[in-house]
Amino acid sequence: MNRIEPLTQEAFRPFGDVIEANEALENFDINYGYTRRFHNLADINVDAEFGKPIVSLFRSNPLPAPIKIERLERHPLSSQAFMPLGASPYLVVVAPAGELVEANIRVFLAQPGQGVNYFAGTWHHFCLALQADSLFLVIDRAGPGSNCDELLLDTPFTLDISGLV
Amino acid sequence: MNRIEPLTQEAFRPFGDVIEANEALENFDINYGYTRRFHNLADINVDAEFGKPIVSLFRSNPLPAPIKIERLERHPLSSQAFMPLGASPYLVVVAPAGELVEANIRVFLAQPGQGVNYFAGTWHHFCLALQADSLFLVIDRAGPGSNCDELLLDTPFTLDISGLV
Repeated sequence: MNRIEPLTQEAFRPFGDVIEANEALENFDINYGYTRRFHNLADINVDAEFGKPIVSLFRSNPLPAPIKIERLERHPLSSQAFMPLGASPYLVVVAPAGELVEANIRVFLAQPGQGVNYFAGTWHHFCLALQADSLFLVIDRAGPGSNCDELLLDTPFTLDISGLV
Repeated sequence: MNRIEPLTQEAFRPFGDVIEANEALENFDINYGYTRRFHNLADINVDAEFGKPIVSLFRSNPLPAPIKIERLERHPLSSQAFMPLGASPYLVVVAPAGELVEANIRVFLAQPGQGVNYFAGTWHHFCLALQADSLFLVIDRAGPGSNCDELLLDTPFTLDISGLV
């Protein structure tokens, strides 16, 4: 059973950006003081091989509990950002880019208001909503070339989410 | 007093994209059926003059009621997308690109789950949250050049939001 860690800027740094209104990040007033701008929170990297950024919405449902983690994917040509639009936490399962080392898989619990932007090549599980019909805004890439690799784990594992939802 | 219209794909077409999980838009299953992808909902246009896309969070507060609309702005070099992260509606005030014609200003009420992507040059008011500390994810441009024009209206007007919040 993997330990489920809280999602923080520091813990997630090897894998990508945490998109959150965190006072420790660059922020400043705009709009005559009516808006605080938390500025440039994600490294959007979609230009490779004539790619361009696209914005989509994902409506995701939970896997059956206990959640079984059997596969990971990566996008070698681009970053991929997820921002939750609802009030529910969700899970983020990642491993460092490069050859997949299953012992290095990490599991994070993201809170509402916390998005993630996977760096190009970061291994990750597909969207792991914990509530039915969870909506996410997604920023990824359209363009030529093969941009999704998937691997089945040699050692699948389950996550105990009792108490989280 | 301007009429406040519901935000729909059709009504907003001259000004930009409505970002919403609308079954009438392109959508398909991914992630082994656990996710429905509403695909490519916004024309992100940030490349002019060596621009690049950036992702920020805006934490916005309402103007004092009755809301007085006194100025509009436009970004000549790029689109700008807003997606609300909370459960509150907000207002969208726009006018067609080109020379500003105040008689052509339109006012829309956006529901939670509805984002907007202003086309480059579309006149718009800055973020008009209706609840304190409303969060929006924003996709706009970083890069050289002057990318914000602002005009004061010759004929400011007020919006009656009683019954909306």
